[in-house]
Amino acid sequence: MLSKNQLKYVQSLHQKKFRQQHGAFLVEGAKSVQEVLAADFTVELLLATEAFHKENSRLTDRQRTPVEIATVAELERAGTLESNNAAIAVVRTKENRPLVAEAGEIVLVLDDIRDPGNLGTILRIADWYGVRKILCSDTTADVYNPKVISASKGSFTRVAWWYGDIQPVLEAAAGQADFAAYGAFLDGEDVHSLSFGRGGYLIMGNESNGIRPEVGRFVTKRVTIPRFGDAESLNVGIATAVLLDNWRRVLNQ
Amino acid sequence: MLSKNQLKYVQSLHQKKFRQQHGAFLVEGAKSVQEVLAADFTVELLLATEAFHKENSRLTDRQRTPVEIATVAELERAGTLESNNAAIAVVRTKENRPLVAEAGEIVLVLDDIRDPGNLGTILRIADWYGVRKILCSDTTADVYNPKVISASKGSFTRVAWWYGDIQPVLEAAAGQADFAAYGAFLDGEDVHSLSFGRGGYLIMGNESNGIRPEVGRFVTKRVTIPRFGDAESLNVGIATAVLLDNWRRVLNQ
Repeated sequence: MLSKNQLKYVQSLHQKKFRQQHGAFLVEGAKSVQEVLAADFTVELLLATEAFHKENSRLTDRQRTPVEIATVAELERAGTLESNNAAIAVVRTKENRPLVAEAGEIVLVLDDIRDPGNLGTILRIADWYGVRKILCSDTTADVYNPKVISASKGSFTRVAWWYGDIQPVLEAAAGQADFAAYGAFLDGEDVHSLSFGRGGYLIMGNESNGIRPEVGRFVTKRVTIPRFGDAESLNVGIATAVLLDNWRRVLNQ
Repeated sequence: MLSKNQLKYVQSLHQKKFRQQHGAFLVEGAKSVQEVLAADFTVELLLATEAFHKENSRLTDRQRTPVEIATVAELERAGTLESNNAAIAVVRTKENRPLVAEAGEIVLVLDDIRDPGNLGTILRIADWYGVRKILCSDTTADVYNPKVISASKGSFTRVAWWYGDIQPVLEAAAGQADFAAYGAFLDGEDVHSLSFGRGGYLIMGNESNGIRPEVGRFVTKRVTIPRFGDAESLNVGIATAVLLDNWRRVLNQ
């Protein structure tokens, strides 16, 4: 049974302000909670149904995770999911450490991606295509938003992110000899015939406005997904997947 | 000013039952309403702000669309969008006509796609990649759901769909000499090295369970998007886009 204070604390983490204040975020639902328990995160409290706790005691014993047994009704009141018959983990946020691109690595740069669903999907896509580092502009949606975590389908445990001013980072990287930054524009080179380099940055811009000019100036190759019909644009998650698929295909040949 | 009856009627169209009963659905927001007014649909009533009506009178005059001036508050009360400062169109649904694949055409088959957001995204992707016909199993989300219409970003005006039992349709098509049906499976042929044929069916399955066996038996080529990382799967919209991108690339070479 959850105490009133526990309930209040968990509910406060629906909001970015309190996530930042407490340095904690929520992971909800059976699959995501299992993934976070098995991963390199510190779970400060697990709210779980009796059944979920029994089935996953190996995972909770591993880090001696504090567990509070909760009913489905309590989970649904405490969390953000419409239905949750398993668990909610309260997890410590990670330190915002700079990410250094290694030679030949593909690094994703998100310039002002506002929609949490899009960001979560992008984490999952990055994870599928083996992209391990994501640089996010300060204005990009908060990765610890429960919608992002949920949409990432566990991929948040396998991808690293950094938030901050991406301009100086790209500025510093641009000074290196093998620097390459691909940016999605409507007037770029056709990705079906482009020979991507071994590694580099893939910059994706805001859902409505695309890449900001002050970030776009670092792009060394403007790329475009060819269109065969009449839709005006593709969703930013879809575009990220198609671009990474084309990039990986070239590297794999 | 909306009458009480108009408001009730528009609100009833949030539900599938009443959309079917009245043969009408809702299109909301400036961009989508402009697209539907310009397209081959019958708008039976347009609720619009004074400003939207003035700016778009050329479009409403075209079909002598009945217009009711509404406030933003009325639009938001009548519709499903959280914010709508432009318009809602009440539009006649189309007859559910069989779609015949032409030689060399790519036709999309949706086997039990349940999520309206996914379906809307898939319409937009089909439109981008020039796919004009979509066959939907009866269990696929209702295309006239306001979430589908909204997620399609106007592409619902450029893509045709049919709902019904897809098995007899595939059965009949399979009798033809040049029949090809590609289906996404985890153990299929790598789409990066596959030579897609000129046309055929692309079958996409349910978000959790994939393609049903009774539909899967029509698949002539099992295909797989290669994975370079650790995510368990890709979202069905993402997978549709990557498969169509690979298919169009091959045809374009």
